Formats: sequence, structure tokens, C-alpha cells
Amino acid sequence: MEKYPLKRTGSPLGNTSPTYQSVNKKYTNENNKALYTAYDDMIDITTSGGGEAAARSLDDDEAMQYSISYGGMQDSAEIPGIGQYDDFHTIDWQRDIAHDRMRHRYLVKKKQDSIWNLIQGVHDACSGWLCVLLVGLCTGVVAGLIDIGASWMTDLKFGICLQAFWLNQEQCCWSSDETAFDSGNCSHWYTWPEVLGSTNKGAGSYLVSYLFYIIFALLFAALSASLVRMFAPYACGSGIPEIKTILSGFIIRGYLGKWTLIIKSVGLILSVSSGLSLGKEGPMVHIACCIGNILSYLFPKYGRNEAKKREILSASAAAGVSVAFGAPIGGVLFSLEEVSYYFPLKTLWRSFFCALIAAFILRSINPFGNEHSVLFYVEYNKPWIFSELISFIGLGIVGGIIGTLFIKANIYWCRYRKLSKLGQYPVTEVLVVTVITAIISYPNKYTRMSTSQLIYLLFSQCGISNTDGLCDYNRNFTDVNSAIEIAEAGDGVHKAIFLLIMALLLKLGMTIFTFGIKVPCGLFIPSLCLGAIVGRIWGIAIEQMAFYYPKSWMFTGECSTGDDCITPGLYAMVGAAAVLGGVTRMTVSLVVIMFELTGGVRYIVPLMAAAMASKWVGDALGKQGIYDAHIALNGYPFLDSKDEFQHTSLAADVMQPKRNDMLSVITQDSMTVDDVEILLKETEHNGYPVVVSRESQYLVGFVLRRDLNLSISNAKRMVEGICGQSLILFTNGNPPQTLGPPPLKLKKILDMAPITITDQTPMETVVDMFRKLGLRQTLVTHNGRLLGVITKKDVLRHIKQMDNEDPSSILFN
Amino acid sequence: MEKYPLKRTGSPLGNTSPTYQSVNKKYTNENNKALYTAYDDMIDITTSGGGEAAARSLDDDEAMQYSISYGGMQDSAEIPGIGQYDDFHTIDWQRDIAHDRMRHRYLVKKKQDSIWNLIQGVHDACSGWLCVLLVGLCTGVVAGLIDIGASWMTDLKFGICLQAFWLNQEQCCWSSDETAFDSGNCSHWYTWPEVLGSTNKGAGSYLVSYLFYIIFALLFAALSASLVRMFAPYACGSGIPEIKTILSGFIIRGYLGKWTLIIKSVGLILSVSSGLSLGKEGPMVHIACCIGNILSYLFPKYGRNEAKKREILSASAAAGVSVAFGAPIGGVLFSLEEVSYYFPLKTLWRSFFCALIAAFILRSINPFGNEHSVLFYVEYNKPWIFSELISFIGLGIVGGIIGTLFIKANIYWCRYRKLSKLGQYPVTEVLVVTVITAIISYPNKYTRMSTSQLIYLLFSQCGISNTDGLCDYNRNFTDVNSAIEIAEAGDGVHKAIFLLIMALLLKLGMTIFTFGIKVPCGLFIPSLCLGAIVGRIWGIAIEQMAFYYPKSWMFTGECSTGDDCITPGLYAMVGAAAVLGGVTRMTVSLVVIMFELTGGVRYIVPLMAAAMASKWVGDALGKQGIYDAHIALNGYPFLDSKDEFQHTSLAADVMQPKRNDMLSVITQDSMTVDDVEILLKETEHNGYPVVVSRESQYLVGFVLRRDLNLSISNAKRMVEGICGQSLILFTNGNPPQTLGPPPLKLKKILDMAPITITDQTPMETVVDMFRKLGLRQTLVTHNGRLLGVITKKDVLRHIKQMDNEDPSSILFN
Repeated sequence: MEKYPLKRTGSPLGNTSPTYQSVNKKYTNENNKALYTAYDDMIDITTSGGGEAAARSLDDDEAMQYSISYGGMQDSAEIPGIGQYDDFHTIDWQRDIAHDRMRHRYLVKKKQDSIWNLIQGVHDACSGWLCVLLVGLCTGVVAGLIDIGASWMTDLKFGICLQAFWLNQEQCCWSSDETAFDSGNCSHWYTWPEVLGSTNKGAGSYLVSYLFYIIFALLFAALSASLVRMFAPYACGSGIPEIKTILSGFIIRGYLGKWTLIIKSVGLILSVSSGLSLGKEGPMVHIACCIGNILSYLFPKYGRNEAKKREILSASAAAGVSVAFGAPIGGVLFSLEEVSYYFPLKTLWRSFFCALIAAFILRSINPFGNEHSVLFYVEYNKPWIFSELISFIGLGIVGGIIGTLFIKANIYWCRYRKLSKLGQYPVTEVLVVTVITAIISYPNKYTRMSTSQLIYLLFSQCGISNTDGLCDYNRNFTDVNSAIEIAEAGDGVHKAIFLLIMALLLKLGMTIFTFGIKVPCGLFIPSLCLGAIVGRIWGIAIEQMAFYYPKSWMFTGECSTGDDCITPGLYAMVGAAAVLGGVTRMTVSLVVIMFELTGGVRYIVPLMAAAMASKWVGDALGKQGIYDAHIALNGYPFLDSKDEFQHTSLAADVMQPKRNDMLSVITQDSMTVDDVEILLKETEHNGYPVVVSRESQYLVGFVLRRDLNLSISNAKRMVEGICGQSLILFTNGNPPQTLGPPPLKLKKILDMAPITITDQTPMETVVDMFRKLGLRQTLVTHNGRLLGVITKKDVLRHIKQMDNEDPSSILFN
Repeated sequence: MEKYPLKRTGSPLGNTSPTYQSVNKKYTNENNKALYTAYDDMIDITTSGGGEAAARSLDDDEAMQYSISYGGMQDSAEIPGIGQYDDFHTIDWQRDIAHDRMRHRYLVKKKQDSIWNLIQGVHDACSGWLCVLLVGLCTGVVAGLIDIGASWMTDLKFGICLQAFWLNQEQCCWSSDETAFDSGNCSHWYTWPEVLGSTNKGAGSYLVSYLFYIIFALLFAALSASLVRMFAPYACGSGIPEIKTILSGFIIRGYLGKWTLIIKSVGLILSVSSGLSLGKEGPMVHIACCIGNILSYLFPKYGRNEAKKREILSASAAAGVSVAFGAPIGGVLFSLEEVSYYFPLKTLWRSFFCALIAAFILRSINPFGNEHSVLFYVEYNKPWIFSELISFIGLGIVGGIIGTLFIKANIYWCRYRKLSKLGQYPVTEVLVVTVITAIISYPNKYTRMSTSQLIYLLFSQCGISNTDGLCDYNRNFTDVNSAIEIAEAGDGVHKAIFLLIMALLLKLGMTIFTFGIKVPCGLFIPSLCLGAIVGRIWGIAIEQMAFYYPKSWMFTGECSTGDDCITPGLYAMVGAAAVLGGVTRMTVSLVVIMFELTGGVRYIVPLMAAAMASKWVGDALGKQGIYDAHIALNGYPFLDSKDEFQHTSLAADVMQPKRNDMLSVITQDSMTVDDVEILLKETEHNGYPVVVSRESQYLVGFVLRRDLNLSISNAKRMVEGICGQSLILFTNGNPPQTLGPPPLKLKKILDMAPITITDQTPMETVVDMFRKLGLRQTLVTHNGRLLGVITKKDVLRHIKQMDNEDPSSILFN
């Protein structure tokens, strides 16, 4: 329901320019019943109808007008559907923001009336901060629960803490107070063969463990898939493509609802624990957005206004990334760069606050017992050598290639799933993928451990306490404090490299099939893991080069002292950034997230070099990142603000109707109720332009289908005399003919300020306007005459057509 | 010169929707001479004029149209003034961006023609990155030179390194290789009394030093002020208000020129060295923007396109902050949050790159010899206690109050300077301020040292090697590695606190008078210093509380072990952030800059709490930050994208002309050259709407004054038959009358896609459109008829009027 037209009835050219003082004065009579009679007033039938009579009884006509506007919105809560959108519809940002400003002005005015209104005003002013505070708190808590749950259930695949079954392996061993906590085995922790009474460590025991591993994995995956299928189909996948679409101004009812939240949280714990090649970082963003959406209903300012709600959702997305990586700044930049669409600066600051609170809460919960929010937090401080930059750029190139390969293969497979029968058996698919993953994963110790643990291992430096095969160098540690010397790789390292290559192939292959199955699954962690493996191997190679050729130009000066000048862990980190960059095409946010993971400024340059190389190579090989590719695959109506519209078409080429069709319009004073009802029945447009007359086609305004429908049916029900032959008037004056039934005056539902463009406007300008102003439709005119309408869907279809893609793949309105 | 109207001459409703293939095809005939005859073609006089004849000889009419468009732009370099803006004019973002896209399409097309064109295409694609790379490199080098110069000249006030006069005190003492480098005195460094032969350290020597200090300060300040006055008046001040205005789409010729760069750099060294209470951080942003502007001329894509150039300038601003604080991420966020206006995501990534390169170069130059880009870089790692948050919020409140006080006093003084005779004696003012500052500063050792050194001292922790009075606690250091125990403050601390309070008052007072004098001066450093003093004193107070009442609820658990649980240096840092926040109203960027200074994630929460409290308190006491206040004071045409337009006026209230005036329009086919020339002479508008006829007022398009002037004078000169009685036609068809002189066809300079709104559009929507689309003007219609025009200046005036300020204070167009 459009509010502007209600504001002013005077001459458009009249000397009505209000000054600040007069506007203030206008509000003085608003504490008035007229306020709450608003909706009915909108359908007043005669020039002396109830609403206008009331208006005249006020000192100032305009005060009344504003109060009606706001009153109408108050009412919108009572009459279901008014001011709301249908499912799968595009929102009109301008309208929603205007509503909010009107509401705000109303509250500011009312503030002086009573203490209760003052409290309301203060509450309204704080509600944004309060809401993001709550979102931050809840996101932190939920993320902590998920982290604890996932880590416990992941360990459950291997054994159980008999004294206290609710502890995971690490906590169990802490509680047992053993100083010799070696390779994760302690007396309180019982592996499944041990629980069953077997004490030997032979092949039988191995097989039993293997079996238990597979059974648990299957159990978890089956549970997760069934939960999703039964209770919340929207809970599957990472959710980021859908959230991008929703934030760009689209309604998907239930996508951010409470069931999605609950099922996604539980399902995420289960699917992570099942050992599938997936991560919990993407879904964490979805979960945070669900929390944001649910909590926004506590604050009508946000809950009832789709445009404003998106500010909260942007902040929530930042909080989601913040808890996923313990990176509040990175989270905000991710929200800004990757997911958000409408991001005013106010939102930046609130998002930061929200992200910080969430990270702070999660760190206080301390799910991993290491004072960090993520399992693979690292602290480096070794310098890097300038010539290593070449290696880092090389890693970036490899990352870009792997990323693009992954995107292409995954999209191919997802399209196959969508088109073939496979899509009809989601649970079966999950089970098959799980069984295969479990069977292949278990024998290789690097794939058997959880992906986060593997990343942590790959990122970490080899020190005196690191006994993994990866650190099996031929060197002696003499003193804890002395620098680690560079050394030849031992057999353990060679074996580890072999296993890592196997792990790389497995993870790459399985992730392609996993991302898109019907359980909650993200791909940050698998991508990071792929990159970390590549990087670590690369790093070890460079390190060995430095050992054998310390005098080479590459290492001059730095490595000749005998210290370990190359950190393979750093390479793992850079590689991880490179592959993640190749997959998601993130840039600044990626660098900042990785930089926050290490907690040092020192490695920004290597990370940046890799991210840049990866992005460039990726973009050269295939334009879209994985999320954009999934948006295109699913046909979501997403108008990317990053893509530039490169073509030269004009508005006249895109608008509907094309030459031969008739444009459905309503005239301002010559159509009857029957005429309009027939029009409404015969066409399916969401709104109709109103013109002076069918012959002249001079544009007067725009009226929404929903408002028309509601007004007509309400008038028929409530007002005597309105029948099919009643004229519908969008003008102020008297009807041109005085005979016949009384006319139905609908000027108040008319938007008299629709955005118009001329037919000669280049489409690049039109696309820009759609993006920046958040339009739902625009009217096309030529010399003042209406020619047609361009909707957001028309724009999206046109872009698809220009890119030689199927324009009918765009779904929804 | 508007390009869109040139593109299409077909029926607006025609079945002309091009597909990708056909668009591609259209380019095939562009390699054609017609391309370079473009400008003249625009003034073709008959329907069969040269340009259109050429067009007809092509396969496809449209290809020609595009080539003309692009050719016209090529030409714009040759015919001076075309496509450029006048000084103090507003730019039209839509037009500039459209130009760039057209140029881009043209290059993409030409790429296949020859290797040279391919190289051109590649160069064009890379030029953005290349340009920001160069900007980063140069900014880093210039910043390094300024740092080195300023540090040498600052020390010159005290003495000289006789062996090597080009070294500053610290380097001089390093070169002397003395291990006992105590309180900055070593045998190679001679203070001025020593140079003059005096060896005693009595009152005489003190007076000589005092005198030299004042003389040098005066000398430097006089030099700086004279240079600015003589060579580059734009080089004074911090430059950030002006840069904000320029980035919002405004032309100030010479503000970012080479003279400004040179004089600002030299003047900055001089004014920083003169001991005035000013910083070099704000001017560094200006210097970086000068570098960006100058280098952008190497790349026509940016140099010749004002809208695109602003992308480079945004990146430059980020680099400026990056070198000022060694904070690349903070720099990008500063550019995003504080200075930039049009900030597409591509710019984010480039800005980051630019900022990083600049920081990297500066760190490689290593001007301070400590591997950091700033003198006051600190590394903490002590945890903070949750209950300290109350103190931090308190500091934030104090910071907000100090900031607002400072803004009010400074603006009051600047307004006084502007209106009184004082403004006519800038050099004298500088000298007076310098003398007063020097006389008061010298006796107090905390004001005698450079502000950066003071900040470093205040930020730093008390350790075993810190012998300043601030660290004179009653404790014994037993072991370097053991934790520092909490202790009672000694006499040195009490004395230091007294001196610091004196310093606080002096700095606060002097900075109010200093910010705004006619030398390069910034206020980041003075603000940080004020806050650091307050914070340090506050921190010592809390520390002493913790010493005397370790069992209090505030310190329970943390301080009972006897370790020093309170870090006064951290308080100094938080206080610094609070005051800077209060002065500039920065938020996220402030926190990130401070966080990058410390290199640790640990203190984000305290910094955020203080920044938030400071911002809220500041906003409650006075809405504008210092930069916005200076913009308002100077009447720059800046449409703030952060302020929300709160009023309820409509477009009809703002548009020109008001009821009684006539709107200056041009009709499409009934005005003669004389009529138009009279109109141009009698009115001063920058453009004129073109309507169907004066009676109907149906809008056809918009034509710029500059284009009209050029076209008419060119046609009179070049085309036979054109005289005062010639009709000017903006239509396609033949002139309605066939008698008389040949008509002048000007359809090609007509913008047929002007942005229009209806008179009922609320001003909040209009303001939004101006901001987001970067409009210069918009046309107001009612039912298709033209009613008036709203320019950016009208909008700014209206906002001023609504806020009860003087609308005539807005300068320029």
C-alpha cells in the first residue's frame, strides 16, 4: 500500500512548501481518533466521506494526512496482508524505507505526548542495537552448542568416555588428569573395541573400529537427512545462495523460520559428525540469519518491514561468519562483500557490533578449550622471504584452477541431480555418499580425523611437541627456546605426503558430490582443507629446496644461517586461502578472515598475493563463484550488483508489452468497478499504471493489484451503493457524470510518484536504477505518454537473454 | 555531451530488441572513418547531412551510432571543453559511467582487429590495477620521505649531529655505537649550547636551548606558511573536508594538483617540525589523493573521466591512512566509511591493494628504524578484566565530551577568523600561534617532545628499561622474565601526572587555534594525544585502586596474585580512540586502525566499547563530526549519504521555478537560433529541458548549455545558411515549414533519457535518487507535463532550509 499519495491534496504547484516550524506545528492535532480510522477512510466513497470530514475538523489538513498514512500502517497489522508481500515476490525497497521514515517521524512527534510514548520512542531508537545485541548473543550461544555437539559426536564414532559419556575425547582425557596425554589415548577413554571387551590391538580390533565408524556415520547422516526431509526442507545446503537472494530483496517464506533454525542446527551437528566432506561455516551464516529473522519479530520496526529487516539480516550474516572463523572484522567484510545488497553505513557499524558480540560470547563459551573460537586458530610470527612471493602467487594460481574445477564439476553434478531421477531420492543419495566417504576415509588417518583437526595440523608449525609424521625431520631438539634448524625430511614426512595426496583426491572428489545433497553442508572447510593440503606439500618442497640449496638466490641471506627459514604451515594457510578464493571468489573478506585467524599483520601480503592470483585465474576460467553459480542454477531472481551490464539495449527493447500487445492500464476516471474486476481477472500483473485516458496515455500513477482487490471488496462489503456500475475515480474532483451509482474514490491507494524512465534510456542505467534504488518495477514513457512497464523479472530475463542463456530459467516474480 | 540519444533512431516501440549475436554483429563495420568525423557530424544540418549519410552506407545503422558516440568522446580530447566540467561544478555520475562503458565496449570490440588494439585493450583492462599500484608505490615513498624529513627537522630544534648532519638524534647515537644510550644523549649529538661551545648545564644553557627552540619553530612555521601562501593556497589545512566534497562529485581544479602535492609535502614537514599542535595524518590523505589524481592522468580511462577518477581517489585515500597509521585494512575502511561516496566493490579490492602496497613500501623504507610504519606502534598481550569495561565506557564518554567541545570551539574560532579581519593575515596568525605554542611547550618535557613520541610513551608499558617518570613505581625488578608486580606509584608518577594535565590543557587549547591556520595540519595526532593523556591518567588511577583494594569486586581473582593486572598503556590507547572518535565520529575504521596499531585481536572489545560510547555521547551533544562541520562552515555542496532526510516535503516544494516564475524551456521544433541565443543570454542554467510545445509542456529531453553553445557557434562558423532565423530542430522528421533558412538539427546533443520524477514524489526519495544515482539535476513532471527542475544545489539548499540554517551558505553550482 503506497503511502505518499495520501499526503497532499493541494495543488501540486501550490505555495505549500512547508518550513521546519510549520511541519512541527502540523503535528499538534494528531492525538486524535482519526488516526485509527485510517484504513476505512481509504475507501471513502464521496467527497464528504468520513475520513475527509474528520480531516477538515483539524486545524491543519496535512497533519491529518500524515496521521492517516501512519494510521494506515498501524492498521496493516490488523488487516492481514496489507503492507506485506506474497511468497516468492520481490520487495519494493523505496516503499518500505519510506514507510519506516514515516513511522519514525510519527514516533518522534508522539514522544512529547506522554511518558509511555517517550518510552516507545526510546525503545524504537534503541531497537536496532538491541536487536543486533540479541542476535549476537544468540548466535554465539548456538554456535557454541553446535561446536560442542559436533566435537562430541565426531569422537563418538571412535569411542566413548565411560566415566562421563558427555565428554569428548580431549575433555575425557583432561578429566583423567594424566600427564602422559599421548596421541589422544588415555585410560578413561574407551574405543569401541575396548568397550566390547577386546584388549588386543590387532586386525580384529581394527575391523570393529572400522565398522563402528561406518555405522555411526550412516546413523548420523540418515538422521540428518530424514530430519531435513521431514521437518524443514529449506535446512539443506549451505544456504548462502538463498540468503544472497533474500537480502537482494526477495521473499522466501519459512526459509529463515524457527523450524529451519532448529533442524539446521541439529542436522548440522549430525552431518558434520558423520564424517562427510562438508563444513559448518556456510550453514552457520544461515543459522545466524534465521536467528536474526526470528528476533527481528520482537521489534516491529524490523519484523514488519522487509527492507529494514534486511539490515538485521546483514548483521546476522556477519555474526555467522564471525563465529565460524572467530573473525569479527572478516565477518563484516564478508557480509558487505559477498552477501549483502543494501548496506548503509549504519549497518556496517551494527554488523560489527553484532559480529563482535557473537565472537566474544563464543570465546567465553570456549568450546574447544583453547580460548579461540575455531579449532584451527594459529599463531605464527616467523618472517617470510620476499622471494617466497613467487611461490605464494603460484599457490594462488593452483587455487584458482582447483576452485574453478570444483565449481564446474559440482554444478554439472547438481544439474544432473536436478534433471534426473536422482533428485527424487535425497535420503538414499545421502546414505550412499556417506557410506562411500566413510569407507574410503577411515584407512587414511588424515581423512579419518575431522577436517578442522586436519587443517589445524597442516597449518601448525613443527615444534618439539609435534609428533605427527609431518614433522618427522632428521633433527635433534636441544633446547625448547632455541630456533628450529632446517633439516632433511624423514620417512614420516614422505609417507605423510603420500597420504595427503590421497586425502586431497578423496576430499576433492567427495566434496563435489557432497555439496548439494540434502543435509546442511557448507564448503568453506573442505575448500580450506584442499588448499591446506596443496600448500603444505608445496611448502615442504620449498623447505627441502632451501635445505639442499641454501645458497640459491631464492634463499640468500635468510636461510644460510641454518635456521628453518621456510614455514610449511604458512604455505598451508596461503594455499587454503587460495582455494577458498578460487571457489567463492571472495577477496578482501577472505584476506581479512585468514589474517584474523593468524592474529598477525605480517602475512597480509602473502595472503593477498595468493587471493589475487586465485581470483584472477578463477575469473579467467569461469566467471561465477560457487554461490553465484548455484543462484543461476536454481534460477533465483538475483540482480548481481557486482556484474556490470555490458550491452547496449534500451528500455524500449525490454519493456512489456511488446509492440503487438496491449498495455493493461486503468484510466483515472472512466472505468467502472466491473471493468476493473475484469481486468484483474484477465491479467496477472502485480500492479497497473493509471493514465489520464486510454487515448492520451498520460501517466497519472501506479496502483497495486493487492490494494485494488482489497479496496474493491471492502467497499462492496462496507459501503452502500457501490455496485458493478460504479465509476472508479483516481481524481480529486467530482465525477464527470452525476447520474448512476455513487463513484468509488480510490485516490488514496494510488502511488502518484512511480519511478519513470523514457524509452530511450539505456538498459545499463535502468539496471543501475533497479539495483541502487531497489525498484520492483519502473514505468516507461515517451514524451509523457506511457508505453510500458519494466519489472525486475523483465530485467533479469533480459540479462539472461543477452548472455545467451535461457531467460525462462528465472523463477518467481 | 550526452551520448545516449545518439544511439537509436528507430521507433521506440519498434521490434528492435537486439540479442547478443546481433549486437556482436553490429560491431563489424566500425573500423571506419566515420568514427573520427563524429563531432562535426553532431551538427549536421539537413536530414542527409554527412554523418547520417555515412551511417547509411554501413550495414547496420546502430553500429554507426555507437561509433559516433565513442568517436565523439575521442574527439572530446581534441575540442577543448567537451565532456569536461567547469571549475566548482557538480559531476554527472550517470553520464560519466555511461561514457566509460561505451569506451570499454568499443575497446573490447576493437581488440580483435590488430595486435596494437589488443595491447591497448589489455592495457586498458590492467590500467586500474596499474594505477593503484603506482599510487601505492608513490604514496609509500612520499610518506617515507616526509617521515624522515619531519623526524630530522624536529630534532634540529634541539641540536645537530656534527659528524653527519643529515642524521636525526636517534640515528646519530646509533652511528656513534655507544651502548649507554641514555635519555637520548650521546657524544656525537650536540645540543645547540654545546655547538656554541658552552659545556655547563646551567640556566644559561637552558635559555640558549629555549631560544633556539623558539627560533627554529618560528623559522619552520614562517617558511611553511609563506610557501603555502605563495605557491599553493589549497595546500593548507587537513584537506579531508575538501576531499570528501570532491569524492562526492564536485570539481575543484588544482586542489589535487602537482603544486599542491609538492607544497603540501614540504610544508607538512616544516609545520610538523615547528612543534605546532598538529599531525601529519590528515594531510597524508590529501597528499595521497594528489598522487592519485596526478597519476590518473597517465591512464585516460581515469584521467579523462571524473567519475572513474574518483575510484582511484578512493583507493588513494585508503593508501594515505594506511601509511599514516600503518593500517591497510583500517585505511580501506576509513575510505569506505568516512571519505568515499561512490564505492563499488571493485574499488574495495583495489583500495585494499593500494593501501597494502603503500604500507609495504613504507615499512621497507623503515623511516623510524623499528620495522613499523608509525612511531607509536605498540605490542601488547596482557589480558584485560571484564569489569574494566566500565572504565573503558567511561573513557568513551569523556572522549565524546572532549571531542564535541573541541569541534564547537574550533568551529567558533574558524567562523570568527572567516568573518573578522584575522583572515587577512594568515602568515602573521601562524607566527603568533607558533610563538605561543613554542614558549608554552618547551618547559614541559611532555609537550617539548614530538606528539608522536609522547603518544608512544603514553601507550607503552612500564618495563625494566623504561626510565621515564611515568614508570617511577616503588618496586624492584628482580628478573627480566618474571611478571611485573603491581606497585605503589612513586613521586615521579605524581609529577608526571601533573605535567600531563598541563600538557592536556595546552594541547587542547592550542589545537583549537591551530586547526584551520594556513599551513598543512591534521588533527588525528593531536586528538590521539589528548585521549592518550586522559586515558593514561585514568589508567594510573585504576591501577592504584587495584593496588590499594585488590580484594574489591572489580579486581577479584585477577589482581589478587600480586601481578600488575592493569595496563595504564591500554587505557591510554582506549582514551586515544575515544577522543579521536569524538572528534571525527569514525566508528569501524577507528577500531580497526587502533587494532592494527596494536597488532592483536584481544583489545577489539575495549576499543569498540569506547568508540561506541564516544560516538553516542558526541552525537547527542552535537550532530556533526569535525569534517562535516568544516564542510558546512565552508558551504561545500556535499550531500551527506549518512544523514537521513527527515522531513515530509515533496518535489513540488523544492523544484524551480516556483509558482510565479516561468520555466526556461526549449521547444523541440519551433524556436529559432536567435530565440535560443537570447534564452542562453538571459538565463544561467546549466541545461534546458526540451518540450513538445510551450503549450503542452510534454517533456522530450534535456540539453546542456555547454553543448548548445558549442553546437550553435560551430554551426554558424562551419555550415552555410545557418543564421539567426534558422529553426532549431530536436526531432527526426522534416521541419514543419519548408520556407526560410535551413534548420539546425540538434537531436544528437539531446539527452532523451533524463531522469524524471513526479511532483508528488517525497523529497526523501528524491534525495535518495540524487545520492545513489549521482544526479546533477532531475526534471519534475505532472501527468507527463514538465513542471520544473530540481538541481543538486536546490536539494542542498532545501536541506539547509529544513534544518533552519541559511540556505544561501551553499556555494558553487
